[in-house]
Amino acid sequence: MWQADAAQLAQLDAAFRRNLINSLPGYKPLHLLGTKSASGITNLALFSQVIHLGADPPLVGILFRPHTVKRDSLENILEAGVFTLNHVRTDAYVQAHWTSASWEQSEFAATGFKEEYKAGVLAPFVQDSPVQLACSLVETQTLAINLTILLIAKIEQVFVDEKGLREDGSLDLNTLEIAAVTGLDEYHSGQSLGRLSYAKPGKIPTKI
Amino acid sequence: MWQADAAQLAQLDAAFRRNLINSLPGYKPLHLLGTKSASGITNLALFSQVIHLGADPPLVGILFRPHTVKRDSLENILEAGVFTLNHVRTDAYVQAHWTSASWEQSEFAATGFKEEYKAGVLAPFVQDSPVQLACSLVETQTLAINLTILLIAKIEQVFVDEKGLREDGSLDLNTLEIAAVTGLDEYHSGQSLGRLSYAKPGKIPTKI
Repeated sequence: MWQADAAQLAQLDAAFRRNLINSLPGYKPLHLLGTKSASGITNLALFSQVIHLGADPPLVGILFRPHTVKRDSLENILEAGVFTLNHVRTDAYVQAHWTSASWEQSEFAATGFKEEYKAGVLAPFVQDSPVQLACSLVETQTLAINLTILLIAKIEQVFVDEKGLREDGSLDLNTLEIAAVTGLDEYHSGQSLGRLSYAKPGKIPTKI
Repeated sequence: MWQADAAQLAQLDAAFRRNLINSLPGYKPLHLLGTKSASGITNLALFSQVIHLGADPPLVGILFRPHTVKRDSLENILEAGVFTLNHVRTDAYVQAHWTSASWEQSEFAATGFKEEYKAGVLAPFVQDSPVQLACSLVETQTLAINLTILLIAKIEQVFVDEKGLREDGSLDLNTLEIAAVTGLDEYHSGQSLGRLSYAKPGKIPTKI
């Protein structure tokens, strides 16, 4: 095994360390976050740090890292109170990656994603995204240790392509052709290994 | 598109809603968290809520949901200050899922994962895991909205199977055969679509 302790990690080449530490969590979700500024300019930003915070009420958390992520999204959310999350299909990962460039204009126009608007939601959705969420800001917390911002939001509306919605409410991400990301720049498709029965002592879980 | 607003989500069957909301984030990482109690009993618990918080110092965040996740891991971490994170190989996902049963004894002995100890680390690692981290507790924050606990930890030691460590520090999760999870009970292998060049305006990103 290759190994490094904290002191050795601190002495590594900065790019090597950044690639390594960003790879350590493993597979991460991939979302395009859509917002609109007070002056009407839309913004689309790629996020891998979207986490489930609760099912009832339905809450998501998003981490914003002040020094490495463009702040337009956060400022728009703080101002408007609403945003959208849109899953990225595997056939759109290059286009999605491109949204992370330093665009002067809206990332929608720049990269070719189409804006879609739905009743009651100010922020733009990504047209043809198989899972779209409208979210409202609940609060933000700043982590003292490195000024990372945890934004907590309520899921106000859910839109899912029916073909990927199972009878029990779970989503079939393979059928929806949803992409994942690892590290800073690598994209993946997923292949289901199976769903497993509720785990109980004494009997190894079986496929359901 | 199937759709539901917040009021409709609240009226859904509880199991359907739980499956749906837990599926919305998309692909999630899969970690086995190893701890040891003051009385010497080891614990191994499955976590999908492990997030990158920073590269320098290297920090991870872990979400603990008080009402749905066994508390042994959290209590052991608060007591001992240390724990391990171990990625799950695709050939061990059934065994990993089984750790989530309500075992009386240590999940290691119960499910067949082998404990591995390394110099200077009290907590047990999972033998043969391709990515192993030793972490120390920094602090915990309780989210007022639903009492979810965000635990912040420093990565003290990194162990990676060399075959998956690229020259630039990124990890090849396909070569390491690392699994991902979606929803509450589905496991996946990943298939790389490619790595992309740093995104710049005016030129679509290319594979690197």
